[in-house]
Order: sequence, then C-alpha cells, then structure tokens
Amino acid sequence: MIRISLDLMGGDFGPQVVIPGAAKALDRHPDISFVFYGLKEQCDPVLAKFPKLKEKSVFHDCELAVSMSEKPSQALRRGRYISTMWRSIEAVKTGEADVAVSAGNTGALMAMAKFCLRTMANIERPAIAAIWPTLKGESIVLDVGATIGADAQQLMDFALMGGAMARALFEVERPTVGLLNVGVEEMKGQEEVKEAGRLLREANIDSLEYSGFVEGNDLGKGTVDVVVTEGFSGNIALKTAEGTAKQIGEYLRAAMSRTLLARIGYLFAKSAFDMLREKLDPSKVNGGVFLGLNGIVIKSHGGANAEGIAAAIEVGYDMAKNGLNQKIENDLKKYHAKRLPPMGPEAA
Amino acid sequence: MIRISLDLMGGDFGPQVVIPGAAKALDRHPDISFVFYGLKEQCDPVLAKFPKLKEKSVFHDCELAVSMSEKPSQALRRGRYISTMWRSIEAVKTGEADVAVSAGNTGALMAMAKFCLRTMANIERPAIAAIWPTLKGESIVLDVGATIGADAQQLMDFALMGGAMARALFEVERPTVGLLNVGVEEMKGQEEVKEAGRLLREANIDSLEYSGFVEGNDLGKGTVDVVVTEGFSGNIALKTAEGTAKQIGEYLRAAMSRTLLARIGYLFAKSAFDMLREKLDPSKVNGGVFLGLNGIVIKSHGGANAEGIAAAIEVGYDMAKNGLNQKIENDLKKYHAKRLPPMGPEAA
Repeated sequence: MIRISLDLMGGDFGPQVVIPGAAKALDRHPDISFVFYGLKEQCDPVLAKFPKLKEKSVFHDCELAVSMSEKPSQALRRGRYISTMWRSIEAVKTGEADVAVSAGNTGALMAMAKFCLRTMANIERPAIAAIWPTLKGESIVLDVGATIGADAQQLMDFALMGGAMARALFEVERPTVGLLNVGVEEMKGQEEVKEAGRLLREANIDSLEYSGFVEGNDLGKGTVDVVVTEGFSGNIALKTAEGTAKQIGEYLRAAMSRTLLARIGYLFAKSAFDMLREKLDPSKVNGGVFLGLNGIVIKSHGGANAEGIAAAIEVGYDMAKNGLNQKIENDLKKYHAKRLPPMGPEAA
Repeated sequence: MIRISLDLMGGDFGPQVVIPGAAKALDRHPDISFVFYGLKEQCDPVLAKFPKLKEKSVFHDCELAVSMSEKPSQALRRGRYISTMWRSIEAVKTGEADVAVSAGNTGALMAMAKFCLRTMANIERPAIAAIWPTLKGESIVLDVGATIGADAQQLMDFALMGGAMARALFEVERPTVGLLNVGVEEMKGQEEVKEAGRLLREANIDSLEYSGFVEGNDLGKGTVDVVVTEGFSGNIALKTAEGTAKQIGEYLRAAMSRTLLARIGYLFAKSAFDMLREKLDPSKVNGGVFLGLNGIVIKSHGGANAEGIAAAIEVGYDMAKNGLNQKIENDLKKYHAKRLPPMGPEAA
C-alpha cells in the first residue's frame, strides 16, 4: 500500500479538480490510500461524489489554505502547522504518508517543505526535478526552479539525486547524466558548470555515467537520462519548451482549419491528431519532484485538470514505490564515503 | 545600393551553399551588391554557375579559411588579417561594405568582429540578437550566446540595443521590452535582473517601453517585442525552442504515417502541412545579429542551406537599409546624455 497525503486546496481549482484527480489515480492504482487535508465545507460535497475514494482515504479538516499568490515567507508565517499545505507535508515527516502531493504555489510549497522536512545530510539545497518527454521516451531535468544559481558541488549533488531518480523511474542501472551548457566544447560555459564537469569526471560514480555537456536542443532529443542545471536556466528551458509546444499547436490548429481540403484531411487523420495531442498534453507529464529533502514532495501544475492531478499523484506513487529517497541516500553515502579521507577528522 | 561582404567559406558546406544563397538573396533584392571573400579554387567553379551574381559582386581571393571547430583564440591567431572571415568583417570597417555575413564558427566570428570593429562607445560587451518567430509575428531575443553572464548595466545596454533593432526591423516607434526571468513577481529572480528592472523603470527611456519581467513561455507568445537576458540562459532558451520544434515535427511525421487513414488525411491537408513546415523551417528565421560593435555582422547557422543563407543575408540587408547602428548610437547617446550630470566632469 502506498500512502499519499494530498493537499486538496492546492491549484487554481482546489478540491473541484484535486478530488476527481485522486479518484482517477486510485482507479488505476488500487494500492493507493490517501490522507486528505482540506477545508471541510468545500471538500465534503465533492468527496460525496466519489464513495470509493472516500473509503480509501482519511480526511483532515484544516484551518486555512495557502493562496496561489501568497509570497513564500508570508505563507510560511500564516500557514505553518495549520494549513492544508503544511499538514500534507507534515504527514510525510510523521510517517503517516509516503509522499505528499500539492498543486499549491511553488514558492510556498518549497519553503514549507524545506522548513518541515529539512534537507538531507550532505545536501545544501533541494532541487525541483521535471520529467521531460523526449524522442526516446523521458528524461529528468533538474533544477527547474528551486533556487537560482548553483555552485559546482551543488550541481554535483543534483547529478547524484537526478541519477537516483532515474534509477527509480526508468529501470536503468547506470543512467547517463549531462550538464546543460552553451557548447559541447570543454572551453565554453560557466565556471561552475566546467568545475562540476571536472568533479563528475573525477568522482567516477558507480550509480551514474557522466556524459559531458549537453545543449538546449539535447533536451527534446533525449540525449541523456538526466540533465543537470541550476534553477534559473532550468526554469527558462522548461517554460520555453512548454511555450514552443503551445505555439506549434496553435500553428497546427490554424493550418488545419484554413481550407476545406485541410479540414477534410483533418477528419481522415483525426486519430493521428488525437495521438499527437495526447503526446503534447501537458497534463500527461505533470509533477515536479522535490529532491534532497527528508521526504518526497510532488508539485503539480497549479492549472492542472483532473488528469494532470492524477499524473502528479502517479509520479509520487512511482517515487515512493521505487524507494526514491533510499536510493538518493545510498548514492550520497557512497559518494561521500569515497570522498572523505579515511580516518580523517570528518570521518570520525 | 546595399553592399554586403560575404564570407564564402563559412558554414558546414562553404561556397557550395553560400554562393547559391547569395544568388537567391540577389534575386529578391536587386539593390544588393556583394564583396566576396573566399578561396579562389573552391569558389570559381560554383560562381561560374551564377553569372548574374558574378556581375554584381567583387571577389577577393584569401589565404585561408577558419574551420568550424577552431577555438576562437586559435582562429584569431591564425586567421587575423588573412582569413575569409576576417577580411569580410574588415570590409565593414574600411567602409567597402555596409554589413558582413558569415556562417562560420560563432566563437571565432565574434572574437574577430570584436577585435576588428571594437565595441561602440558606452558598450562594454556586444550581444548576439536572434529573431524569434512568435504567435504575433516576430520578437528579438538577446543575448543568445555572445557572453556568459551580464550585470544590470549590461542588461540595460542590451535593452537599448534590442530596442533600436526592433525599431529598425518592425516599424514600431516604441518597442516593448521585457527582462527574461523565472517569475513575474518582483521578488523573484537573479539580483542582476532585478537591478536591471529598476534601472529600466527609472530611466524611462523614450525609445522603448519597459514591460517588466517575462518568462520562458512568453517567448513563443510574443508578449514583448524585445526579450533581454544574459547569454547563457538566452542560448539555452534558443536551443531548447529549436529542439522542441524538431521534436514535435518528428511526432507529427510519425503520427501522420502510422495508419492508412492518417496518410490519406495527410494528402488532403498537404498544403496546410506545407504551410506549417514553412512556419517551422529554421532556414526562414536564420541570422543572429551582432549588436554593439562599430559595424554590423550577421551570423548564419553553420548548417544552413541556401535558403537559410539567403535569409541571413536579408537580415543584414534590412539592418543596413534601416540604419541599425545609427539608431543604436542615437539611442545610446540620448540615454547617456540624460544619465550624466550636466556640467559634470564626464560631460566635458
């Protein structure tokens, strides 16, 4: 049984969409049980429509919900201990749940997750990892926006955590890892990225295969299993790709409705277009994974529909089922054990 | 007459593609005259096939061509004064040409352009500006890879230069300018970006309208006329968008050939698909503009076909015809005149 704590009030639509999303996820994975955190008055009428879900869940009424526009510091001050967001995270800390899922505001969720769960030993900063659809399948890209900037050691940590996530998700033993850069030649790029490349090459880590630098166009190709970058560039890459996909979708729609012949062609090829639409549907690949905390938290898009919420829940389900955090902790331990001088003061 | 100096040896295919590209550009703009720099033996046989082009051009035989893989420092050492790349840039300096175009390696081209033309007064660093196709038409994005990192004043300079380019290209009087960031709220983002936002707001510049922060997904939407960012993020955004467009093109191809019905539909809608292909064709929007130098240099994609080369030449043609550098110089002068204390020592 995978126990998922869910913030019912998160996202642009709150329980109206989060609860149906949970129902979908449960349909597909009967071994889920839910711990819900919500405002009773708003949730009860929706929950009543999903008796099967109600049966597989425990509901906790909370005092308040964090709004989508609240600043992280304000959300933390106002919502600590008592908000649906905080309490769904706390359930992971207390062991009531294996993973927390929220579609609430990213900054607030990260601030609360850090405050409540704390970062893992040897990890300075958490990262947000995105699952990126590629021509070969899927890759993991991190950090897509937890923090701006990262030094070489932090990029190294991201590589280790991303590698562990790839092993949890893709069933590869030694995932390939690339550092996002502006050129494949060694002399180009940010100092931190170059230094991280040196660290990764020298560390020669068992749990991942360092493949060198990759560029923006390698993301869609799926050149490597894990792409590592700091949060500013990572967030810009993610949003640029989403924007480009939407833009091309618009072009396609416009082209297909322009002439009668095109419209007829569209009807013939409708199943092909449906397949394509499915492929480009952002709700199919929803769910940013917070890595580096003592507990797994999944962030869904705020604007996700029920299908998107279900996808985010399923990411959490996979992560918990495949022991993501155990994998990360093991990998970190091995790496740091190798790194510390034997019998040195830090090893004591 | 717009005089264009062209490096015939640049790009993955050299004169085989650059010369036919020049012929296409001349067909469409009979008021172009060319100054060619190439290796005679390789160029003569190709040029012989384009008598009209030959008539409208002067050919200069050079000693060497810079290779696509050469490091900038090496290219500069080896190719200064004597390479086709250097000499095509030099033609702008001496006034023989209004603009230089090369499909050669970006790092070498930028190094030579800086060395030969020098940066404009009041500009610390040049930038590479890309013309970005959007749902509304086109935007300008800079810097897409001239240098990594930029402080607030440099971002401000990019805004001024990008604004001038937008006025030269789009026939708007006061282009809108946004700073690429990870969130629209004022508290998010890199320090330099926030500081640049303050500078832009306070400067209240006549030649542009500062619209605040934009995110990666605003690029494809065309939210603003000019998007300003430092070269690392800009390059990653550009390549990510190109990669995503290719990826979706692949999905579409696969979907349309999967079933008989889809293939029939494709035939009906062929003209619509052709329109779409044209829209996504990278050769249609080829040509990075080097801004901030005492002379205009256009960088074409190395892998461009003849159509792509023609597009890059046409970007140069437009820039020269619309007095890009005069516009930039005027805007900079106005901005700095406002900024300096009247009668202060710097104003002397």
